[in-house]
Amino acid sequence: MLCFESDYMLGAHPAVLEALIRTNMEPATGYGADPFCASAAEKIRAACACPEADVRFLVGGTQTNAVVIDAMLAPWQGVIAAETGHVAVHEAGAIEATGHKVLALPGHAGKLDPAELRAWLARFFADANREHMVAPGLVYLSHPTEYGTLYTRAELTAVAAACREYGLVLFLDGARLGYGLMSPASDMTLPDVAALCDVFTIGGTKVGALCGEAVVFPRGNTPPHFLTQMKRHGALLAKGRLLGVQFDALFTDGLYFRIAKNAADTAEQLHSLLKEKGYEFYIDSPTNQQFVILDNDKLPTIEEHVAFSRFEPYGETRTVVRFATSWATRPEDVEALAAIL
Amino acid sequence: MLCFESDYMLGAHPAVLEALIRTNMEPATGYGADPFCASAAEKIRAACACPEADVRFLVGGTQTNAVVIDAMLAPWQGVIAAETGHVAVHEAGAIEATGHKVLALPGHAGKLDPAELRAWLARFFADANREHMVAPGLVYLSHPTEYGTLYTRAELTAVAAACREYGLVLFLDGARLGYGLMSPASDMTLPDVAALCDVFTIGGTKVGALCGEAVVFPRGNTPPHFLTQMKRHGALLAKGRLLGVQFDALFTDGLYFRIAKNAADTAEQLHSLLKEKGYEFYIDSPTNQQFVILDNDKLPTIEEHVAFSRFEPYGETRTVVRFATSWATRPEDVEALAAIL
Amino acid sequence: MLCFESDYMLGAHPAVLEALIRTNMEPATGYGADPFCASAAEKIRAACACPEADVRFLVGGTQTNAVVIDAMLAPWQGVIAAETGHVAVHEAGAIEATGHKVLALPGHAGKLDPAELRAWLARFFADANREHMVAPGLVYLSHPTEYGTLYTRAELTAVAAACREYGLVLFLDGARLGYGLMSPASDMTLPDVAALCDVFTIGGTKVGALCGEAVVFPRGNTPPHFLTQMKRHGALLAKGRLLGVQFDALFTDGLYFRIAKNAADTAEQLHSLLKEKGYEFYIDSPTNQQFVILDNDKLPTIEEHVAFSRFEPYGETRTVVRFATSWATRPEDVEALAAIL
Amino acid sequence: MLCFESDYMLGAHPAVLEALIRTNMEPATGYGADPFCASAAEKIRAACACPEADVRFLVGGTQTNAVVIDAMLAPWQGVIAAETGHVAVHEAGAIEATGHKVLALPGHAGKLDPAELRAWLARFFADANREHMVAPGLVYLSHPTEYGTLYTRAELTAVAAACREYGLVLFLDGARLGYGLMSPASDMTLPDVAALCDVFTIGGTKVGALCGEAVVFPRGNTPPHFLTQMKRHGALLAKGRLLGVQFDALFTDGLYFRIAKNAADTAEQLHSLLKEKGYEFYIDSPTNQQFVILDNDKLPTIEEHVAFSRFEPYGETRTVVRFATSWATRPEDVEALAAIL
Repeated sequence: MLCFESDYMLGAHPAVLEALIRTNMEPATGYGADPFCASAAEKIRAACACPEADVRFLVGGTQTNAVVIDAMLAPWQGVIAAETGHVAVHEAGAIEATGHKVLALPGHAGKLDPAELRAWLARFFADANREHMVAPGLVYLSHPTEYGTLYTRAELTAVAAACREYGLVLFLDGARLGYGLMSPASDMTLPDVAALCDVFTIGGTKVGALCGEAVVFPRGNTPPHFLTQMKRHGALLAKGRLLGVQFDALFTDGLYFRIAKNAADTAEQLHSLLKEKGYEFYIDSPTNQQFVILDNDKLPTIEEHVAFSRFEPYGETRTVVRFATSWATRPEDVEALAAIL
Repeated sequence: MLCFESDYMLGAHPAVLEALIRTNMEPATGYGADPFCASAAEKIRAACACPEADVRFLVGGTQTNAVVIDAMLAPWQGVIAAETGHVAVHEAGAIEATGHKVLALPGHAGKLDPAELRAWLARFFADANREHMVAPGLVYLSHPTEYGTLYTRAELTAVAAACREYGLVLFLDGARLGYGLMSPASDMTLPDVAALCDVFTIGGTKVGALCGEAVVFPRGNTPPHFLTQMKRHGALLAKGRLLGVQFDALFTDGLYFRIAKNAADTAEQLHSLLKEKGYEFYIDSPTNQQFVILDNDKLPTIEEHVAFSRFEPYGETRTVVRFATSWATRPEDVEALAAIL
Repeated sequence: MLCFESDYMLGAHPAVLEALIRTNMEPATGYGADPFCASAAEKIRAACACPEADVRFLVGGTQTNAVVIDAMLAPWQGVIAAETGHVAVHEAGAIEATGHKVLALPGHAGKLDPAELRAWLARFFADANREHMVAPGLVYLSHPTEYGTLYTRAELTAVAAACREYGLVLFLDGARLGYGLMSPASDMTLPDVAALCDVFTIGGTKVGALCGEAVVFPRGNTPPHFLTQMKRHGALLAKGRLLGVQFDALFTDGLYFRIAKNAADTAEQLHSLLKEKGYEFYIDSPTNQQFVILDNDKLPTIEEHVAFSRFEPYGETRTVVRFATSWATRPEDVEALAAIL
Repeated sequence: MLCFESDYMLGAHPAVLEALIRTNMEPATGYGADPFCASAAEKIRAACACPEADVRFLVGGTQTNAVVIDAMLAPWQGVIAAETGHVAVHEAGAIEATGHKVLALPGHAGKLDPAELRAWLARFFADANREHMVAPGLVYLSHPTEYGTLYTRAELTAVAAACREYGLVLFLDGARLGYGLMSPASDMTLPDVAALCDVFTIGGTKVGALCGEAVVFPRGNTPPHFLTQMKRHGALLAKGRLLGVQFDALFTDGLYFRIAKNAADTAEQLHSLLKEKGYEFYIDSPTNQQFVILDNDKLPTIEEHVAFSRFEPYGETRTVVRFATSWATRPEDVEALAAIL
């Protein structure tokens, strides 16, 4: 069975696992105060070219989004997101569970449009009734988006400028950040992201770790008592080392980027092969998630040989399906997939 | 440096790590729907002698307490706990963050007194103003408690009877459950716990896993849409396999109990050795946490050789310190500790 | 100065005030257990033709929406509303503050479209990822809507049928219910509303009272411990009599409906006069709120003589303004307004 | 039937009602931006000798406590209160519903002990685990307390000093403030309260109004966007005039203090008469609530003629009952009560 269902179907990248094995019997203090977390943070600071950055490690994506957003908003503020954004749709109301509204704006292949954002903000802050409404306090972007698309550097710069003008925090959810940065379509580096955002995450779960998201506050702008706020949301691991060891491995010798590059390369290979064969793409994704439109009557046969995910119906007789590559996808897997299709 | 600081200072028990290595490249569905979680749940059902039990896997202790308590209480209800209970003191308000009050009752070496509990409930339900008050909906016990003490089977039976009489849920926090069950002082088995409680946890983090708490609903009495409720609290892992693989290993060939037995044995050894030497114990704990009163002026010297935790001041010149044993503690470590003291 | 700013610009209808004066020195138990609340509830039951209805009295509209919605949803559920609905836009996140998401659907002149609603529900309950999403638990309608428009009986019946099919609660926010029922365009009676909805409110604040909203659970389907839930949200008045006395007066001799009829009649008069004069209406409202498009340069002059509210910009040079009639509007006021315009 | 059940059994003081009648037909803007609120605020500033004070008007006591406490705490902070404090016991978890813990300290006849408070704070801020705990952010006092007792000026000064030293907000719940200030036992004035507290309330509901609590931020230290925060908690009245008119009347010509003085005088009269007759007092209250211990077998007879409230059982055969005086209590009512007892 070929595995293209998602990028979190396997365990950890072997080098990450190896690091867990190697450090297993070294005693370390709990709750993130261990040397592994310190070392990982140092390496991430270097990779971000942000010597003042504060780096914290949480367990999962929804948890991280909820903790960060709640910690950076005032009680009367909400978070702006594309209507297809993860926090708006697929987190079971985790943001609302912290008392904050998600202010959904139109999504364009998963992305916010900077001009629409700016116009929305201008309208809000000119509204005579705004004190009866939830004030925007933070802009949430996923990069890559849930549709595999990417912001250009110019777009992210425009979003950041709008945020600064109106006093909003810019938060980039990088659950799949590596896959975005290593895409041939990307014109941004990790230091670019760090320079433009007020807070962002570097996803581990989907990029070779067993679990874990690194949260970066690039200018040391961590909300007060963030450890307590993590604990209050059940997001503080006793064995914080589990996260530190993994991120330390991921940011040693560029492993994180090599993992991502493999996924980008095999995704591109998949894209080319399917295009050649005349397949129609639902969206033009330059990252590790490829969205293809298939005939419903062919799905069962394909599913005998390939694990993939059914994304959404496309008319009466077709379905958008997603193939995801990862650190573990080999060129021969892609060829085998293409052969089956 | 001798390591007695806590039971979560190392990585995982080697057999747990081995299971992670062995299964690493087997693809598996996310969010707990993988075969490892299914297998672990089956083994836990067997160990609990509860064929109808539903078993779910969460990441950490505070998270688990908050998710379970919130899911089992109605909005107007609160949770009864000993004033020293983890949910009452050391979870940074995680329960209140879900909107529920912790109703603190006196603690007796960490334990609720069944008679006091019953009297409190009788008083509450006879109070003419009770509709203006938070109604008790669940009793939270930690077993072993935060002071290492244990409920007897008779005590737990009395608490359970009070809960049933007044319609409350009985929840046992077993973050260190193994250490309690394998204590020579225990008169309870895991099936006893399952028979008496409405929901309980089997802690992994402190008993040999990298992370993870198993939640057992012994009679299949899982709250509705519990997966969604987990997600809403950021407690649903994409790679749920990480938890399933570990608990599957812990409940294979009785590993969980062997781990706990080692901690119990070495704790008893420590207790005897220190008693012989005339040390005063703050509390008479029969489990893996030993609380000893030391002179403040001796602490720095000891800390050069031993990692332990300062628990609380004891008058002006002495301090209660905690030594914790674990699956990794060897008899020679205990002897070395005794020699230093 | 002519007063068309809103329907809450004056104190109470004289008959309501008279009732407060008359009962002022009669001692009565607190928290809604007084004879005035009992009498008002009885009269409302009769007006609704719902002998089994339970009627509760809260203070304001946002408060009532938040308390009712929170009490009728499970924690993992959200409330469906038109994107222009009061709970979606103008309650400062009061619903989210209780942990629930507002699921916004397109609004059509303020109304949900029953077919769109049904299609949305069908799609949601067929979505393979729905356990990762906020489940709809309640449909919120305002009637009249924020744009003064009305659901027909057929539309409300269709919405109710969709709710029943999918197990959702139907909640009608009747902050201005009287103005809707007495509109010449209405084909519904209060008993119709009671028969079709699971819970609805009868607004007092905007229909002649100083404050107060009556919540009707038509089939005695009050959520458990609703008094405690009111208290928990700060919505339980010590002097509940203040609400009971007012609603008792409003539902004596049809006062509530006479008040509403006056507003409907004067709104119709206003509509005719302005139409004659060639004014353009932003929306065709059959109730006491009339939305007219005026040239920006004429606004300051009009504002010297008339209090009204600027609703929203209409292009660069014009503005949508709202004129609201009420129990206190006299035909000569409308004529004076028309003369000024 | 004599009315001593509570101080909220009647409608409004006649002068308050008269003000509502007089202003009824004057149009006024909503949401607290009316001239009545402005005038009331000005008079309260004068009475407090606080020209910079910001004064806001909310509806009820529990609501006000929840809104103020939530607005003045950071998310990770909790509120310190006596274990018998209203927010700790009788508000149905309204504080926890906003996500904050009530940190209960021992109550001494309803009061916090300043020295115990200071010691508790010292211990908390020295605790190595404090980042895992809810940090105290605000001290809540009720004055008079739920037992009718009063803080002395020296005690309140000591509490304020502890708050300042540790960076906490001092909040005084004055639901019955007038009855405290006019007690012969009081050594504090309203300006004293304003000088010592960071925020306090002046209760209207129990001191002659139909409803309403004035919140005073003595140094203009209102939390940001407080109107939005009120709205978010359902605490913003459309007809804010209802509150403004009443408080304007209460603070015209010292009415608030005259009302309170009548209650204090009649309470003192009651105290003397019952003491003469040999009745035992549960607590020595110098304010309008008097707590007397009565034999259970005499209660039914007394209840035929007098409305009072049963407070709590006192052993097997006796009960603590409360008699409350108010603005409406006449000396002859007290004599009649004494005659019956």
